[in-house]
Order: sequence, then structure tokens, then C-alpha cells
Amino acid sequence: MEKIVSLAKRRGFVYPGSEIYGGLSGTYSYGPLGVELKNNIKQLWWKKFVSTRPDVVGVDGPILLHPKLWEASGHTEGFGDAMVDCKECKKRFRADHLVEDATGKDLEGKNEEMTKVIQDEKIKCPNCKKSNWTEVKDFNMMFKTQMNGIEGDIYLRPETAGAIFVEFKNIVDSTRIKIPFGIAQIGKAFRNEIVAGNFIFRLREFEQMEIEYLIHPEADWGILFDDWIVKQEEFAMELGAKKEDLRRLEHPKEKLSHYSKKTVDIEYKFPFGFKELYGLAHRGDFDLTKHSEFSNEKLEYFDQDKNERFTPHILEPTFGVERSLLLALVAAYEEEKIGEDDERVVLRFPKKIAPVKVAVLPLSKKEELSKPTLELFGKLNEHFVSQYDDTQSIGKRYRRQDEIGTPYCVTFDFDSLEDKAVTVRDRDTMQQERINIDNLVDYLKEKLN
Amino acid sequence: MEKIVSLAKRRGFVYPGSEIYGGLSGTYSYGPLGVELKNNIKQLWWKKFVSTRPDVVGVDGPILLHPKLWEASGHTEGFGDAMVDCKECKKRFRADHLVEDATGKDLEGKNEEMTKVIQDEKIKCPNCKKSNWTEVKDFNMMFKTQMNGIEGDIYLRPETAGAIFVEFKNIVDSTRIKIPFGIAQIGKAFRNEIVAGNFIFRLREFEQMEIEYLIHPEADWGILFDDWIVKQEEFAMELGAKKEDLRRLEHPKEKLSHYSKKTVDIEYKFPFGFKELYGLAHRGDFDLTKHSEFSNEKLEYFDQDKNERFTPHILEPTFGVERSLLLALVAAYEEEKIGEDDERVVLRFPKKIAPVKVAVLPLSKKEELSKPTLELFGKLNEHFVSQYDDTQSIGKRYRRQDEIGTPYCVTFDFDSLEDKAVTVRDRDTMQQERINIDNLVDYLKEKLN
Repeated sequence: MEKIVSLAKRRGFVYPGSEIYGGLSGTYSYGPLGVELKNNIKQLWWKKFVSTRPDVVGVDGPILLHPKLWEASGHTEGFGDAMVDCKECKKRFRADHLVEDATGKDLEGKNEEMTKVIQDEKIKCPNCKKSNWTEVKDFNMMFKTQMNGIEGDIYLRPETAGAIFVEFKNIVDSTRIKIPFGIAQIGKAFRNEIVAGNFIFRLREFEQMEIEYLIHPEADWGILFDDWIVKQEEFAMELGAKKEDLRRLEHPKEKLSHYSKKTVDIEYKFPFGFKELYGLAHRGDFDLTKHSEFSNEKLEYFDQDKNERFTPHILEPTFGVERSLLLALVAAYEEEKIGEDDERVVLRFPKKIAPVKVAVLPLSKKEELSKPTLELFGKLNEHFVSQYDDTQSIGKRYRRQDEIGTPYCVTFDFDSLEDKAVTVRDRDTMQQERINIDNLVDYLKEKLN
Repeated sequence: MEKIVSLAKRRGFVYPGSEIYGGLSGTYSYGPLGVELKNNIKQLWWKKFVSTRPDVVGVDGPILLHPKLWEASGHTEGFGDAMVDCKECKKRFRADHLVEDATGKDLEGKNEEMTKVIQDEKIKCPNCKKSNWTEVKDFNMMFKTQMNGIEGDIYLRPETAGAIFVEFKNIVDSTRIKIPFGIAQIGKAFRNEIVAGNFIFRLREFEQMEIEYLIHPEADWGILFDDWIVKQEEFAMELGAKKEDLRRLEHPKEKLSHYSKKTVDIEYKFPFGFKELYGLAHRGDFDLTKHSEFSNEKLEYFDQDKNERFTPHILEPTFGVERSLLLALVAAYEEEKIGEDDERVVLRFPKKIAPVKVAVLPLSKKEELSKPTLELFGKLNEHFVSQYDDTQSIGKRYRRQDEIGTPYCVTFDFDSLEDKAVTVRDRDTMQQERINIDNLVDYLKEKLN
């Protein structure tokens, strides 16, 4: 994992947020290659789940939403964990974790009992080893702020779903879409986590790709549910995940939210263990009913053919953007032995998501080569995200491109001046092929699609 | 303008934010067509200014940044306007506007003088007509919040540029890019405006597309500056702006920030008058110098060829996403007379940014037509964002597609079953052409590119 984090920073995929100012934990910046990779992942998702599906439409709602929305969804009341602070070293801990680690008891949700146990058993602070605690208190993870013209606090959305539900009526009114249908959104959300960590796995500012899929209350949801799970796994595999590194974790009935009929996490085998990658939940009519109640707007669907009015039920497949990106990096990373004593690091990204598609390399820096190579680069760059590199030996340049996962390297040499052809080298096989310059764009297009 | 706002809501381009909860002023949601239009604009920008330019790389930084960054940039101290509150009706006003409207005097920046003038001249509240005012006070437009582990306040970024400057060092270290070069970013920013308005023109939550273009301090910046202005206007025209609806407004020397050598606004003739669309500023070395001072990190560029170390100067072209989208809607909107007594509303979007490229229409709902038409739709939808519509007459369906700017309508009729051809109707000319189904994808690809 350290190797991936280090490569990500060194080559411009992911930088720690606000680093020159000492950092801001739980935030990251995406460098030149990271942005391209992230955009490719988002566009692949949008194409798979929105553009090519007649039953899904997109929406893009704001991060700042009316505070009543979060009352309706229950976030104002109960979004967060019970925390306890060490009065000595000022560190904050999740109370249920502290209690369970020390006593083996699961007291989640029982704040008074936890306060008592922590004091009675004189549980020690994992940081300073003293035992001087505050009471256990619920801590809300929403970021609060204030806006001109609005009394009280507003919040940075802690999840993107709310921005979809609030537009349910507008979308039904302004499109001709018929149930079952999905509303998809890609966007940021914010959670004031106590502990962020595992690189870009748990963040305070993150991005979700999510669909609210609306179905008839009596629809055979089991089939649709299974179909979504399969499609979610399919997407993970399109990013490079191996099937055996994915597993499903169904939430046991007693841990389900009261409104959910079924919830499944899709876990991926990250270097720090199997962890939640994506999720799928049957949310019943909970969201639309609550928002209808709090907004006094009817949030129903009218089926003209059947002359029937009802509140749809919802299946909610959720995908994390940063977790997708982390998966792509982890799955692609390989240290490959070459022959007896050589080795290379290669990111075997699926070609569709590789941030740079083609590297264009003049064999030497001499102008007789650099001029036509730059011309060729300009032409290729119109079609594919390309890089021009003329520093050091061709071998070293190949390695540099391997390390960022560029599928094809195109070398322009002295023969190219005569035979109007270039050498195309494949990232995975390392095989080289001589291709006529006139056919190069078509050749690469075919290889890359 | 009302017509555009109403069409935007009715057809699913732009909805008022949090509408079912009574709205949240200065925020909007983008519906199914709005998202596609916005994504097309952003992708066009990225292709023009990043992917196809060897001298520009992308970055994507967080909205939550270290608070010291905003001290360095001067936002903590001085980002905002001097405000005054009416004690009677509690309305808040920009003090300089209030004074100028009542007395004609420009006292911007002189808070004590303004307080005195407002009281001495008994200026009346534009809302309640009384004259009972607070003192004039600076109001900071940054949204404040708090984060675990950080003492004091942090802010939602009020502009995207800071997230670029903070990564200057990482980008120089992790790429091989050479000066002059640009760092580009698309992302959200937040300003707690006193008065938001003019639809999506002035928002509290908005999105910027921005480039920090780094040049040698002694470079001939005039040529580069002019080149950027031209490219910015070019982009506006690619979105549909007519040249005569654009104008340049150079900031007079006495209004320039002390570090800026030149600043030009590009204004567009919106329905509410010529207003700022894009901007271009020469910012000198102000930003990198300040961030270096506050972070204690050297933010310099080292030119290996010349063995020279220096702090680059910066040209900063800025583009608003929502203003681009508003321009696209305004420029595209046309009410066209057809013959004697017919009329249509048509959005003449440039094809590249049209949210839906192709509409697929079966002449009748009968299964013998709907089945093959749906098949055709499935095929086209793989290549172009398409819509299937089988409701009402073909004429009405054409009008519906005109109103959302769909360049091509494909009609499958009873003859199609025999001749394996369809009718393709052009949005702008309304001319129809019979095209063989086997050639349809290629035909549309050529027309759309």
C-alpha cells in the first residue's frame, strides 16, 4: 500500500490535501494523471448507467440544501456516532469501539450505559493511558454553516441521495419517463469523520455515484435487486477488479434499518483487507414518504395506463468515486520480473480508464527527429490523451510510461524519416510492431476501443 | 428571460434548488437535460484547454482547504463587501450601493464615511422606507464551518484558484512540464452573497473552469494575454455566442489590484444587459509569493536548461460554468415563425453541446413499428445520447425535440419495414432525408462531428 501511495504522489495521481500548509486530514487533491483517471471512471459509469440506459436519467443537485431536508431524512437527529473525549490528552474516540475493545460488550446506541461502563471499569485512554473521560455524547457528522437569509444552520450534504429525492417531482413533471426508472447523480458529499484514513478510502470530502431506482411497490424487486448487484460487480471488474477479490456481505435482518427489506455491501479486497466498495439497499418508500411529510408536497407517481397513483419504492445502488479510483490503482499495480535481473513496475489499467493513452517518443532530441515527432504528437493528441517525452533512453521512457499505465508507446526513429512508419510498443506484452504513420490513428483507435 | 427560465424548468434543464422545501436562494439543480448540457460544456472546455494542449495539465483539489491558505490569499481579511442593516425591517444592503444610489458619491472602502453619510443624509431603507441603520461593517462572504482536529474555523473555498496554487510544487515535482505552462481545474466554489439573482447568473454555490498559466517574469506577456482573450472569446462562440454580443471591458489602472498588470472582463449581452461572462487577469507573482511566505515552502520554478530559479508570473483565465450554460440557453433560444400562422420554439444549440443528439420516433405505437424502432434506438443510444418518443403526432414530437435542441429526429415508418430506411429530419433546416438504416450511424456521426 505504501508503494501505491508513494507512486500516486510521485507521478501526479493523488496528493495529500493542503500539504504545503501541513495538511488537512481526510482531504486529497488529484494531480494531472489523477484527474484524467477520475474523469475516465466517472464517464465510464455515466455511459454504462445513464447515457445508454433508456430507463435512467441524470440530475446534478447542489451541496447546499434546505435544512428541513435533513430533518426529514433523519440526519439532523441521528447522523453520527456516540463519542467520548479523554479529558487528559483531548483525544476523541468512538464510545462503542472503546467499550467493545476493553470489555467485549456491544453497547452501541446505549450512551448512558457506556458512560457508566467506561467509568466503572476505569477504561484507559488508548493514547495517554489515563482514565479521565467526558460523558458519552452523540456527535453529528454533518458540517454546519450559515447562509444569508436562512435562520439557523444549514449543512454540507452528508450524502448525495437527498439532492435526488428533492427533485423527484420536478423530474417526473419535466420528463416522460415511466416506472421503473432511475435517477442518477455524481457529486460530492462531506462527513466530519472523527478518524479519516486508509489513504483515499475514508475521507471527509468525497464523491458518490448513485442511482435511486424507482419501482412499483408490488414489483418483483428481488430480480431487480440481483440485477443491480451483478451490474455493480460488473462495473468493478471493468475498472480492473478480479472476480475473486469481490464479495457480497448481506446485512443481517436485525441490523437493517426498519424500512429496508435488504441491504448488501459489495466488498473489495483492498491491501488493508476486505472493505466496503459499493452498496445496494432496498429503501422501501421511506425517503419519498418522509420528504412528502416534511415538505407538504405529494411525492407520488401517476401511472396513466393503469390510472393508478402510488408512492414508488426505491432500490439504491451507491458507488464511491475515490474507492473506485483506489480499486483501479490497487488492481492495476504490478511489480513484474523481466528476465534474470530486471524488474518493472506497471499499472495494468484497463485501456478505457488509462489516464494517458499514447506516449510519443523521438529516438533522439535532434531536430530532424523532434520536429516530425512533435507534429505526429499534435495529430495524435487530437484523438487520444497523449504525452510527449524526449528525455533519457527509450528503455527508461518505456518504464516511466509503464509506471503510469500508458497502453501504447510510439517511437519515431531515423528510419521513420524514410519508411514513414513508427514502432508501437504494447504495455502489457512489451511486443513492438512497425506501423505506417498514415494508418496510426486508426490502428490505435481499434486497439484502444 | 422569463420564457427561458420557464422552459428550463418545464423541460428539465434547471430547477430552483430545494424547491419543495420553499427554496434555498442562490442554489439550483440541473435536471436530466441540464446535466448533459453542463457535462458537454465542461468536456468541450477540457478538450480545448487541457487534453489537446501539451502545455496545460489538470488538477482537482478539495473544496475544504487549510484555513491558512485563505490568510495568505487575503480572503480571511478582506473578501466581501461593506454592509449595513436596516434595524427596522432587518434587511441587509451593500453600503456603497446604498450611498451611491442616494447621493451619487462613490465611497467604496470608506466605512466610517459611509456610516456618517447614511446617518447625516437620513438615507431611507429601499425596503421599508424608514431610516434606522446599523454601522457600516465589512461582511466576509466565505462560508465558515468547523472540522475535527482543526482549531478555529475552516471555509468552503470562495474560488477555485487557491486549490491550484497549493499544488504548484507537487505538480512541478511530479510532471516534466516546462514553463510556460498552465494548470487547469473545474470545480465548485461558494460565496455567501447578500443578494443572489438573475437566475443562474449570480449564485451562492457555483462552478468555475480556471487556468493558472505560469510564465517567466520577463516573458512578453502582452502577446500571451491577447492570445488568451481570443481563446476565451472563441470558446464563448463555440457555445453559440455571436461575436457582436461579446465585448471586452478592461479594468482602469486605478481600480486594478496592486499586483495586477492588466485585467479584462469579457462581457456577454445577457437579456438583463452586458454582464461579466469570463475574466482574464495578470496576477504577477502575488499568489505564489504569498503562499510561499505563509507556508514557508519555496514555490519556485527551476529552469534546468538555463540553470535559473525564479517565481513565475501568472495569467489567469477564468470561466463560469453556470454563466456558460446560461449563455448557451440564451444564445440558442429562438421563436421562429413558420409560414403564415405557425410558430415553433427552437434551441439552436451547437451540435457538440446539444444534450440530446438524436430522437427516435416510431410513426405509430403499433408493435410492428415499435419493436424495430426500439431496436434501432438501442443501437443509436450506444453512440449518441438519444431519446425514444412515441406519444402524439410526429409534428408535435418534432416540436418537442426542437424545444430541447435535438439536432436530428429519426422516424421509422411503415415503409421502413420494406426499404430498410428511415427519415432523418434536421432541426435547423427542417429538411428531411431518407437514409438507409445500415448507414445511419455513420451518417449521424459525420453530421454531428
